Parts: sequence; structure tokens; C-alpha cells
Amino acid sequence: MNKIIVQKYGGSSVADIDRVKKVAEKIVERAKEGNRVVVVVSAMGKTTDELIKMAGKITSSPNERELDMLISTGEQVSIALLTMAIHSLGREAISFTGMQAGIVTNAVHTKAKVTAINHKKLKSALEKGKIVIVAGFQGIDANGDITTLGRGGSDTTAIALAAQLEADGCEIYTDVDGVYTADPRIVRTARRIPVISYDEMAEMASLGARVMHYRAIDLARNYKVKILVKSSFVPGEGTLIKEVDPMLERVIVRGVTQEINVGKIVVQGVPDVPGVAYKLFKALAEEEIIVDMIIQSSHRNEINDIAFTVAISDFNKTIKITKRLAEKIGAEGVISEPEVAKVSIVGAGITSDPAIAARMFGALAKEGINIDMISTSGIRISCLISASRIEDAVRAIHKEFNLDKAGEEK
Amino acid sequence: MNKIIVQKYGGSSVADIDRVKKVAEKIVERAKEGNRVVVVVSAMGKTTDELIKMAGKITSSPNERELDMLISTGEQVSIALLTMAIHSLGREAISFTGMQAGIVTNAVHTKAKVTAINHKKLKSALEKGKIVIVAGFQGIDANGDITTLGRGGSDTTAIALAAQLEADGCEIYTDVDGVYTADPRIVRTARRIPVISYDEMAEMASLGARVMHYRAIDLARNYKVKILVKSSFVPGEGTLIKEVDPMLERVIVRGVTQEINVGKIVVQGVPDVPGVAYKLFKALAEEEIIVDMIIQSSHRNEINDIAFTVAISDFNKTIKITKRLAEKIGAEGVISEPEVAKVSIVGAGITSDPAIAARMFGALAKEGINIDMISTSGIRISCLISASRIEDAVRAIHKEFNLDKAGEEK
Repeated sequence: MNKIIVQKYGGSSVADIDRVKKVAEKIVERAKEGNRVVVVVSAMGKTTDELIKMAGKITSSPNERELDMLISTGEQVSIALLTMAIHSLGREAISFTGMQAGIVTNAVHTKAKVTAINHKKLKSALEKGKIVIVAGFQGIDANGDITTLGRGGSDTTAIALAAQLEADGCEIYTDVDGVYTADPRIVRTARRIPVISYDEMAEMASLGARVMHYRAIDLARNYKVKILVKSSFVPGEGTLIKEVDPMLERVIVRGVTQEINVGKIVVQGVPDVPGVAYKLFKALAEEEIIVDMIIQSSHRNEINDIAFTVAISDFNKTIKITKRLAEKIGAEGVISEPEVAKVSIVGAGITSDPAIAARMFGALAKEGINIDMISTSGIRISCLISASRIEDAVRAIHKEFNLDKAGEEK
Repeated sequence: MNKIIVQKYGGSSVADIDRVKKVAEKIVERAKEGNRVVVVVSAMGKTTDELIKMAGKITSSPNERELDMLISTGEQVSIALLTMAIHSLGREAISFTGMQAGIVTNAVHTKAKVTAINHKKLKSALEKGKIVIVAGFQGIDANGDITTLGRGGSDTTAIALAAQLEADGCEIYTDVDGVYTADPRIVRTARRIPVISYDEMAEMASLGARVMHYRAIDLARNYKVKILVKSSFVPGEGTLIKEVDPMLERVIVRGVTQEINVGKIVVQGVPDVPGVAYKLFKALAEEEIIVDMIIQSSHRNEINDIAFTVAISDFNKTIKITKRLAEKIGAEGVISEPEVAKVSIVGAGITSDPAIAARMFGALAKEGINIDMISTSGIRISCLISASRIEDAVRAIHKEFNLDKAGEEK
């Protein structure tokens, strides 16, 4: 049996008819090599945004089932056009909506989770030698309603299909040619990372390196789907995301990432009684506000400060909720700071080696950059700093760990 | 149980967001009267044409399954937006694609025929008090592929649903406020026809009064679905299309219609041997050319002329085929005339009363308009005349039968 290759093309890869034709050529090439090819495709360019804008002209709070009904048309247009383009190159191909591809999800509209894939139709088409084109980002719930998968949805479709079909490869085509040691717009000498582990990639993704959504990476890790991230515009090796060989694991800094658009909030003079932090973060969670870094510090007897960060889009809402809570629990006051940013280093094992953190902090100190808050995970160290110094911070840290030099010890 | 009303809104009725909102208001009004309302809606404005244009940029001969996949998104956008608009007026509503509404068709893509309707979901939503919004023009074949119904498709969806749901009414909203005794752009005094029979309406439709496609009227006749045609823009009584009461039937001229864009072809000096006409019209049928009027006349011994008309869009193709055939069968020559038009009167029983035809021919003669060919059906008399005189012809006949005067004997 020939290899099964799953490819995914994002919205920018099929932004207009000419790009659709180019993508068709790439797909046909891959099929000519003797592969059975399944392609997952997103809506063309800004189509989804435009559809949402139309809904916005009708109501500020569209029903989510209807919103899914609306925006799922974007991918349906893409699959039809891409399939026609493949036909015109003389190859057999067939398109499937999420529903037809058997992508079953839960009923949480606009951010549904894939629960099962009934790939009978899809496999039968592959066996007939057809290239299969599947609408990304969409599925169907048990009730037969169209659902969409939310952020990272098309990547999720591709990885779920690759897992279910036991594909030999899963290729994600996007507008960058792989994952970099830092944002090349900030660090001119940033290098493409040839191989990265799922865990490291998930941290990079959640820290603002927007190549893939961490949700899709989680799914790939769970099903051990190897992902090759490549550019759909320029040739290149891309970045392979896979499990690391634990025997070969060593401490290595993979990359530096930055996250701007962060806001910091401090609740001052919080009485040190159990349940106070719980009450605050529960109230925020109920409004679906994601809290990132949290630091609780004690500066006087039985009085604490609680500091935390949120996305700037949630900033004003968060301040309002926090002020209400602060009053209720008898805190002294709330101060906020919108102009902060987070710089992080990512790498398996880096937090187990204290020298790594020391070098990061030292690099920032040498640049005269103040560290406001620090948080770590098993494979990440993050520092909150002033937003105005974020680019200097990224460059300094990138240099400190010699990330511009391939193969050297870091 | 409350009445079930099926409404259909065409593309011009939902051409932009403002119109979608207006249609939502009309629907909610109808529901507030205590009706259970099912709405069939077309794609917004020129959406379908734009999607076809996109396909045309990829290939001149798109695969028809993929074309249906593509253009069916147009109605899906409409149903989602219309449902949101109804929600924002505070009423419960739910949208269904053709597939979800259980519209089963044969597998003839781009011109599928409805073979069954599984209306379980739709009925259950109605019973819950929801307004049901269904995508017109589309269905699903036995294989689960999306199909579209071709010309008159959304009307067909509405009538098929009305039949299956045993609806108490089927209202077709369009950009005219009913069926008229003649085209009001030609005859200023043309009147709206309050009630018309299926047969008469089918003749009017096939003769160029483009209110409804005759295919939809046929379906309505078969299931005895009463149709009320109304304007979605201006208030009015509309035209009711229903079965006539045969006991009350009397000879009456309903209206005058014109068809321009007709071409005439004459094969001269055809040997009078059996099978000659058959060969010619079989060759044209094989090219899917629809031949309208046919006259065979004998002017010399055993030599005939065969004259016929086709749509001007098929004119050049028809001449080519006819010339080839004429040579083969030994005819003397082929002449053609592109500048002809057809004027018709429609009314139950009119061909059974010779005085009616005489009055029509007389009205044309008085205007100095030459009749080139004549054809009749049970309820229609048509004359082929010079295209340059068509408006004069329509006006003269409209006046002759006093169609501008309501209630008078005709």
C-alpha cells in the first residue's frame, strides 16, 4: 500500500484563485510521488472574518449554532475550488465537508472538540486513487448540526485525520517556513529549528510563536502524529515536531519568544485568610478570562499582595471585576499596568539547570531591563518586563544563548 | 394545531443585510398571527453568479459535484443570517441546510430532482414553536453528496415542503407583486391577475412571464399546493395560483405574453420522404437544443419546407447542425432569421373558441403586423412576428381583449 500523507493549507495559502492553483500543483506533485494524499484546507484569506462581520451587522450576539452554519461555508468554498483546480491538472479528486468526512464533535458551537472520525467514505475515496480534499475547522455534532472547532481548528482537523488514518506524514503548510529560535522580525539572526519536541512546541505556541495553536500540538502529542511545518510559498526543510528521544534529552534552549499585549493587575493589602485568591480567580474564570502569571507576596504580617497578568483584550473587564472583589474582601486597593510584556525561553529541562535561569536574568540585567515578575514551567522560564524594552530583551537573550549559531553548545 | 405556512424569499428579497432584516420582520409578523412558519430562502442577490465566476477562473468545465458543493454555500449563508435576524427580533428560529431539512434528490448534479423529503427534524422544530429557515435550491443524494436543483430550485423546495407538510399556504415572495395580464413595462394599463390556474400559470411562465419557473408550477399542480405570489417590497394581494373549478370554467383570456430572443430557421425544399423531420430534430435534441414552434408546409409536389424556432442563444449552433443535416438529406437550402419574436395569449379553453384566435389575428392585422407562424396548445395561441413590432403587438392584443378592465367580459 502507498503511503498516506495528510497536508493542511491555511487561509493565506489559498487567499486567491492563483494561490489555489499553486496549491493544487503542490498537491498533485505529492500524489505523483506515489502517495495517497488527504488535504485539509481552511477558508480563503479573510473569508471567515468577512462572514463574521456580516453577522455583526445583524446582531452583536449571534446565536452560535447559526454562526457555525454561517462561517463553515468558508471552507466549503475552498474545498470545491481546490478540487476543481486539481481536476484541471488531470488528477481525480473529491471534496468532503466536515460532515461528509465524518468529523464528529461535541455540541459546543464555535469551539467544538473532535470526539470521533468516521472515515469510511474518505478511505474508500483514497482506495479509488482519488486525492481527498477535506474542509478544515468544521464537523457535525450528534444532532446533525454543523459545528466549528475554534482557534487552531484546521490544524486540529489535519492532525485528527492523520491519527485516525494512521498516516505516514502530516504536513502543515503556512506562511512561515518553520519554527524559529526567535521572531525573525526582531532578531535578524534567528535560525529555523529543524526538530522540536511536542512539549517545547506547545510552549512556543502558547507564548505567541503563532505557527500552530497549542491545542493542535496537544492532539498530535496524544496520538504521536509527527508534524512537518513548512511554507506554502518558499521551498525549505521546515520544522519537524515529534516526540523527543528521552535517552538523548539534554538541556538546551530552543528559542526565545515574546508576548506583548499583556496587562498586569495588583491587588494590594489582601487579608491573609484562606479562600481569598480562590474567590478572585473563580470570578475571573466565570467570565472566561484567562489569567497567566500569578504571584502572591507577603510584605507585612498577614497582609499580602496578589499580582497577575491577563491578555490586554480582557484588561478593562478584569480591572472592573477585581475592584468589585477587592472591596468585598477588604483589600486596600487595586493598581494596574497595561504596558507590560513577557519574554520567555523554552527548552526541555531548562528549569532543572539553575545556571540557565541565571544566564537569562543576567542578560536582562546587563541591558538594564527590570524584571517585574517571573514564572516557570518544566520547560519554560518567563519574565514580565516593560513593554518598551521587549525587543531589546529578546535580542539580548537570543545572543546570550548563542541561538544564532547552529550546532554550538547553548 | 396552528396553521403551517411555507414562505419563499428569492435572492433579490435578501440581496443585502437591510433586506434580510426586513424579511425577518415580515416572517415574525406572520408567526405572531399564530402560524407555524417554514421559510425557504435563496442565496443573497448575485452570490450564486459570483461563485460560478470564481469556478470559471479555475476551469471552463467544472466538475458538477464540486460546482454544487460550491454554490450551495450561497443559501447556507442566507439561512444563517436570516435566522440571526429573527433571533434579534426575539423569536426562536433554526436554520437547516437542504441536507438537514431532509431534501433527498437524485444524483443529477446542478439540476437534481427532489425524490423524497424526510421532514422529521423540521417538524420537530416547528412543534417546539420555532420558525424554521430552510436553504432553497439544494438537497442531498443517496450517496450523501450535496446537489442543487437548477432553475426554479428554491420555488421547488418551497412547494415540495408545502406538499409534504400539508401546509395551509405557500407564499412565494419575489420582486413583482403578482402575475400581470401583460408585462407592465410594455402595457401601462396591465392589471394584476388575482387568481390563475396551474395550467395557465405554467403557460405564462414558459412564455417569458418570469415570476415562477414552470417546473415549480408543475410540482404545485401535482400536489395541489395553492401558491400565493406576492412582492416582498410592496404590500398587495398578489396572485393566487390554484386548480380551477372545472364547473365554473369558461373561456377567458388571462394575459398576453411576449418572448423575444427567438430565432427562426427554415429548411427549404425538403424531399417528402418519411423520417426527414425526425432526423433533424433528433440531431438538435442530442445537442440539448429546445425547438419551440414547428411548421411543415408543402408548396410543391413532394417537396416541403420545415420552419422552426429556437432560443437565440442556440441560434448559431442550430444553423450549423441544420445546414449539415440539410445537405445530407438533400434539401435545397437553409435560411435563418434572428429578428423574430413570439406573442401569445393564455387562457383556459381559448383554443376551443375560434372567435378568440380570430380576434387576436385581427388585432395584429389592424396594426399592420404580419404573422409569420402560428402555434397553439390547449390554453395558448402564439404568433411569430417581427421582433421590431413586439411591443405594438402586445399592446394591441391586450386592448382587444379588454384586459385593462377588471371584471368585464373578455
